[in-house]
Amino acid sequence: MKKGLFITIEGPEGAGKTSIIQMLIKGLAEEGQTVTATREPGGISISEQIREVILNRENTLMDGRTEALLYAAARRQHLVEKITPALEEGAIVLCDRFIDSSLAYQGYARGLGIEEVYEINRFAIGEFMPDLTLLFDVRPEVGLARIKAHQEREVNRLDLEALSFHKKVREGYLQLRNKYSSRIVIVDAEAPVESVYRESLKLIMEKVSELSLKK
Amino acid sequence: MKKGLFITIEGPEGAGKTSIIQMLIKGLAEEGQTVTATREPGGISISEQIREVILNRENTLMDGRTEALLYAAARRQHLVEKITPALEEGAIVLCDRFIDSSLAYQGYARGLGIEEVYEINRFAIGEFMPDLTLLFDVRPEVGLARIKAHQEREVNRLDLEALSFHKKVREGYLQLRNKYSSRIVIVDAEAPVESVYRESLKLIMEKVSELSLKK
Repeated sequence: MKKGLFITIEGPEGAGKTSIIQMLIKGLAEEGQTVTATREPGGISISEQIREVILNRENTLMDGRTEALLYAAARRQHLVEKITPALEEGAIVLCDRFIDSSLAYQGYARGLGIEEVYEINRFAIGEFMPDLTLLFDVRPEVGLARIKAHQEREVNRLDLEALSFHKKVREGYLQLRNKYSSRIVIVDAEAPVESVYRESLKLIMEKVSELSLKK
Repeated sequence: MKKGLFITIEGPEGAGKTSIIQMLIKGLAEEGQTVTATREPGGISISEQIREVILNRENTLMDGRTEALLYAAARRQHLVEKITPALEEGAIVLCDRFIDSSLAYQGYARGLGIEEVYEINRFAIGEFMPDLTLLFDVRPEVGLARIKAHQEREVNRLDLEALSFHKKVREGYLQLRNKYSSRIVIVDAEAPVESVYRESLKLIMEKVSELSLKK
C-alpha cells in the first residue's frame, strides 16, 4: 500500500535541478517530512548493469528503440527496489528525472514519438505514476550559458547543435505540460535560486496537505 | 525495403524446433531459396550484453516487467542488426522464437498480461511482424517426456511443477493462435519428425508463392 508522495523533478541540463533538490531535502526535513531523494540508477545493481550497456562506448550500433526499452527496464527496477519501498513507508520521494525525461528526450527530441515511448514507460511504471512533477523551465540559451559558466570555455559548433537539440527538448517538455496539466507544474527556473526553491517547497507542501485531507 | 520473408518458429521445449529448423535450412536451399536461420541473441553483441543481465544468477531481485523490457530490447537490436538486413537482401529468415514466446511465457504463463507484453514488443518490432509463424504444438506431457528422454533421468517434483507451467504456456500459445489466426499456423509436432518437416516446408513454400504472386 502506497502511503507516501511521489514527486519527480524534470527539466533540461542547466535548470538547476541538483542544487534545488539538495535545498528541498533540507527544507522538507525542517517541515517534519521524511524524504528520500534519488535518481536512476540510484545504486540499484540491476539498473546499474543496464546503464552500463546503454553507456558502453563500444555499442555504437545501438538503435534508439533498444535504448528507450533499456531506459524503461532500468527505471522499472529502480522503482521496484527503491522508490516503492520508500513510498510504502510513507516518505516523500524526490526523483531527479523520471518518465518525462524519456518522453521529452527520446520521444520528442529524438523523434521516436511521445505516444510510443509513453506506452513502454506505462508498462515499466504500472500504478506508480508521479503524484506531482515540477518542470524546471529555462530557455535553452540560459541553460546552456549556465553549463558553459561551470565549464569556463568558449561556445563551439557542438554547443550550437546542442542548442537546437535543447530547443526541441524544451518544446517536448512544454507539450507534456499541456498534455498532463494536472500532474505537471511549471516552475520558472530562470528566477533566483532562493525563489525557485521557495516555489518548489510551496508546491510540494500544498500536495502534502491535499493528500492528507483526502485520507 | 523488405523483400524477403520473415518466418518465426514457436512452441514449448521438447517440440523439436531445433531439429526441424536444421532440416528446413537444407530443404529450402534445395528449393533454391536463400535462408538465414537465427535465434536471439544471434551473435549480436548488444543483445548478448542484455542477455547477460537477464541470465546473471546474482540478479535474484529482477522484476518480471524489467525482464520483459530487457527481452524486448535484446529482440529489437537482433532485429535491426541481423533480421532486417537479411530480409532486405531477399532472404527467408527462420527465427527460432520471437514475439510469441514473450507473449506466451511472460504475458500469459507468468501473468504479466498478453496485451501489456504485446505493447512493448510492438514498440520493439515496429513494422517487422513475422509474415508467418509456425506453432509447433505438443501436449506438455509429450514435450516433457522428450526432454526427459534426452536427459535420461526420473521425473521429480520440479518436473511436476514444470508440467503445470508448460500447460499454461500451451494455453497461452493456443490463445495467440486464435487471436492472430492469419499469421499463426499450428503444426502437429507430435507427428513423426519427417512429417513435421514436410508440413513446415509446404507451409513456408506456400507463403513464398503467395508473396511472389502479390509482387
